[in-house]
Amino acid sequence: MSAGAGGLPLWGPDEELMFQLFEVADLEQKLTTGVFGGHDRDSVVEILRVARKIADDVFAPLGPLLEEHPPQMVEGRAKLHPAAIEAVHQVRDAGFFAAAFPEDAGGLDLPFSAHSAAGAMLSAANAGLAAPSFLTAAAANLEMAYATEDQKRRFMQPMIEGRFFGTMCLSEPHAGSSLADIRTKAEPLPDGTYRITGSKMWISCGDTEGCENIVHHVLAKIPGGPPGVKGISLFIVPKFRVDADGQVGEPNAVGLAGLNHKMGYTANTNCVMAFGDGGECVGELLGEPHKGLAAMFHMMNEARIGVSFGAAALAYAGYAASLAYARERTQGRPIDNRDPSSPMIPIIEHADIRRLLLRQKAYAEGGLALCVASADLVDAQRVAKEAGDAEEAKRLHLLLEFLTPILKAWTSEKGLVANDHAIQVLGGYGYTKDYPVERLYRDNRLNPIHEGTNGIQAIDLLGRKCVMEGGAALRIFAQEVAATIEEAKASPTCAAYAAPLTEAMGRIEATLGALAPLMMKGEAGRALANATPFLEMAGQTAFAWIWLRQALAAERAAAAGRVTEDFARGKIQACRYWFAWELPQTAHLAEQLAAVEPSWAEMDEAWF
Amino acid sequence: MSAGAGGLPLWGPDEELMFQLFEVADLEQKLTTGVFGGHDRDSVVEILRVARKIADDVFAPLGPLLEEHPPQMVEGRAKLHPAAIEAVHQVRDAGFFAAAFPEDAGGLDLPFSAHSAAGAMLSAANAGLAAPSFLTAAAANLEMAYATEDQKRRFMQPMIEGRFFGTMCLSEPHAGSSLADIRTKAEPLPDGTYRITGSKMWISCGDTEGCENIVHHVLAKIPGGPPGVKGISLFIVPKFRVDADGQVGEPNAVGLAGLNHKMGYTANTNCVMAFGDGGECVGELLGEPHKGLAAMFHMMNEARIGVSFGAAALAYAGYAASLAYARERTQGRPIDNRDPSSPMIPIIEHADIRRLLLRQKAYAEGGLALCVASADLVDAQRVAKEAGDAEEAKRLHLLLEFLTPILKAWTSEKGLVANDHAIQVLGGYGYTKDYPVERLYRDNRLNPIHEGTNGIQAIDLLGRKCVMEGGAALRIFAQEVAATIEEAKASPTCAAYAAPLTEAMGRIEATLGALAPLMMKGEAGRALANATPFLEMAGQTAFAWIWLRQALAAERAAAAGRVTEDFARGKIQACRYWFAWELPQTAHLAEQLAAVEPSWAEMDEAWF
Repeated sequence: MSAGAGGLPLWGPDEELMFQLFEVADLEQKLTTGVFGGHDRDSVVEILRVARKIADDVFAPLGPLLEEHPPQMVEGRAKLHPAAIEAVHQVRDAGFFAAAFPEDAGGLDLPFSAHSAAGAMLSAANAGLAAPSFLTAAAANLEMAYATEDQKRRFMQPMIEGRFFGTMCLSEPHAGSSLADIRTKAEPLPDGTYRITGSKMWISCGDTEGCENIVHHVLAKIPGGPPGVKGISLFIVPKFRVDADGQVGEPNAVGLAGLNHKMGYTANTNCVMAFGDGGECVGELLGEPHKGLAAMFHMMNEARIGVSFGAAALAYAGYAASLAYARERTQGRPIDNRDPSSPMIPIIEHADIRRLLLRQKAYAEGGLALCVASADLVDAQRVAKEAGDAEEAKRLHLLLEFLTPILKAWTSEKGLVANDHAIQVLGGYGYTKDYPVERLYRDNRLNPIHEGTNGIQAIDLLGRKCVMEGGAALRIFAQEVAATIEEAKASPTCAAYAAPLTEAMGRIEATLGALAPLMMKGEAGRALANATPFLEMAGQTAFAWIWLRQALAAERAAAAGRVTEDFARGKIQACRYWFAWELPQTAHLAEQLAAVEPSWAEMDEAWF
Repeated sequence: MSAGAGGLPLWGPDEELMFQLFEVADLEQKLTTGVFGGHDRDSVVEILRVARKIADDVFAPLGPLLEEHPPQMVEGRAKLHPAAIEAVHQVRDAGFFAAAFPEDAGGLDLPFSAHSAAGAMLSAANAGLAAPSFLTAAAANLEMAYATEDQKRRFMQPMIEGRFFGTMCLSEPHAGSSLADIRTKAEPLPDGTYRITGSKMWISCGDTEGCENIVHHVLAKIPGGPPGVKGISLFIVPKFRVDADGQVGEPNAVGLAGLNHKMGYTANTNCVMAFGDGGECVGELLGEPHKGLAAMFHMMNEARIGVSFGAAALAYAGYAASLAYARERTQGRPIDNRDPSSPMIPIIEHADIRRLLLRQKAYAEGGLALCVASADLVDAQRVAKEAGDAEEAKRLHLLLEFLTPILKAWTSEKGLVANDHAIQVLGGYGYTKDYPVERLYRDNRLNPIHEGTNGIQAIDLLGRKCVMEGGAALRIFAQEVAATIEEAKASPTCAAYAAPLTEAMGRIEATLGALAPLMMKGEAGRALANATPFLEMAGQTAFAWIWLRQALAAERAAAAGRVTEDFARGKIQACRYWFAWELPQTAHLAEQLAAVEPSWAEMDEAWF
């Protein structure tokens, strides 16, 4: 097996993703529906094998080189190390830009969960290198939903083929998360196109190399439209203009104003873009005028699942690396043996190292499991829609709406703690660039920030998802959890977890019972001030649920001989850890939340 | 006020350290004893003013430049950016190498607490630049305790003058924390010196520029001595030999084998050293043979207080920077105002930003307060000793012994969370090198690792400090906390915190009641497996104590007009936060600890 810096692996056994896709989620059942072409378990396994090979053999070994040679801005354009371009081409040539698209568009009809799982291995090996393919696929997916046939032919199709890359351009320098305040302007031109002028910030792959064109998906305002978010439209703005035949022609005035120099995630570019500066920048409306934000939000759930996969994958990479290190590195002796002439032991035998590893396992595999389960809901929705079952599709949609902010925030928060622990296992070595774990930590620090900061996720959860459609989304989640609890009651290993999970769900409901009335009677500000601890409570509970699901699935699979006994025991022990040390934290959170504890709400600015 | 990258300050109001030194600790009383030369409040204030000026005007502006130009190894020697050398010389010329030494040695007779407070400002501005002066002072202090008069004249005196720099050489590549297993050898030579051969790892400032000589303090084994830690001796090993007159002569064979490339703390070197490779390396015994570890441990408490100051200082720098950013940056609107034509508000008005700031304040100022209180114990011990009060000196010593592992681990754990929050306040900008907060986070990640990993601190606390001298250290700590609780009961603002802190102390005692018998009856391994959550419980409780002390001191000082009402309200609010959201976490920890919860203790290696 090839590996990252210091000879350490950046992924664990193949068994792990198989378990998540086929034992915790039920991908096999979805494959039988015919919605995903002719895929069966074997074809999915084969595609994951290809992704792993690129991750291990191409991505992982490049880590140190690309750290030393990050993208540069040369004569107004982004310049990448040739190895970075070549690596992305290997992903494209293996079909991963196209994989999740229908066969008639040149794709592989791969379920979203399987495609995301493949992406997780690539992200673990090098998050920056994995980004272009998944960003481009997301952009093509956006066009799939909203573009005209003509636009699909000229922009979406070349993105699916990986000839064009795609971006999303939302934020602006003066208004990061506040899309109501964007200033980028789109003025109608006589031929039905628009003149785009303005600056965009934080644009991943905004300028890059290795493609014929870059298709930007830009939020802008058409003058005269409604103020705020209701006046936002979405535009296709290519780096080079594309004629009616799809031929790439003259440059559009899409300027690279600068590269952001990041603490991590350095293998790709993050750009400040200037549209219409020193020339005419022409864009085409995508979807309806003033409905741009809705279109973007249509994609947001999947983008946030993508961020979550990235966060969990980086956590899992650190776990795999530090586990391998801990098995090999010898140091010290057992607590009860102070004989200095006895041989040193592998550090995995020290209890505190096992604690650091078990917590990583709990955060990383818990995150992966919740990611796969969420991606599975996307696939399940598609199955339900194609079967004409609108009610089930709606139910799955609401469940995913509820889970998304929890998933995004909690995989990224806990994933970062996992990466912190990976460094700690390696000690001083972990703090050096000779080993990959410090890079994983730097890379992962982005995930609590982008695609909606975790503070925004918290407000989304408490202020929107918990109360939407009369609380329907929360009720559906509660039903799912209740089903797992019922299953647990029948398992000798897991029955003890039924009561504490029931209590934790009760705390969420009781807290909402205290906060929802405040939100209704015009005191939303007071209630939402504590949105983050509420999300923390929900996150700890959702992870408890997914760990219980994993423990139950592991027990089933081991009994049927589909996973090893050791694998199952590991899952059951991590579940035990969660219920002993993590879930109980929700009790005191619930107490403070119910009291609407006001420490920061009432903290006067002058007191800081 | 000068500032770091992005124009953000890296320190808060001068009031803060004054408050810690003179209101929470009682430095004024110690100054009246005459033990610290002629110092009074004004002279201490003046020295702190000088440190702040260097921090603001010299250190802080250098951050980005030194990030771009880290030390390099050129022709076998460390090469630094000239600005880094110049900055360290300014610290030396201002007297900070010498400050804590007696006047007759060329020092300023400054109390340890005041010297450390000055160092905190320098560390906040640039941790790497602050290191040489404080390392050298620690090395000189070690010689002060153990060296012969001749050694003091030839090595200690030039270190105090800042002509020589000093290092500590403990770890070796194959045995980081396991000093029993060091292999560096010291063979007696006919003239009473020793031939030193071996490799040392993680040597801060092991090779550097800007000094006439580097005095290494090296742990090594004299052949034939006892095995393990009982056979470790301590040696003075200069880079250049020093003759009887103190003249610097020919090179000693002290080789730089390599520089460690760290994720942070990049302004100074961290080295792999090779002693006696390709030449004769001569060392002089410091103290008695085979008593080297005891000598090193004599210094360890102060070194660990130094690490803690660094961790708290970096946390405070991030707090100051993100607070300034949050006051200026506008984005979004209040939750209850969705009118997009209304002006955007400074982000400090958003509750979740206030949460991130208040938590930083709680971690950073709580850390600083515990650091100053601990440094104050060092000064108090000196006062007691000079007054001939051996009993009081012993009491203070035991209290410091108990506090040290908590202080080191908990300021570094919580300090890092504070730095994480500083990034989050700045959002995407926080993730870039245009602002200082990502650097602070990288710098601070070292602190949970060096001077004994936090896992080792936890074992030290539970396995040694809690049970030493029949539990005397814990009893003394409990008495200190009880005194604060008594004081709180008389304060209308703070009386409510008396009961929860009493309960938290009760939990520590009850937990020990459950674990101590295990340790006694040969099951230390089982009990110590949970040492880290025990330290977590102790850390949360110690911070609660110090926050209550701060709240009480602030109330007193505000009533007497020595601090502003706003300053006091901020302290009281942060105390409130701690008791609402942090201290209650100890309840579920105590429950698991009392049950000797075995998730990781029983996690089989094959299950990972």
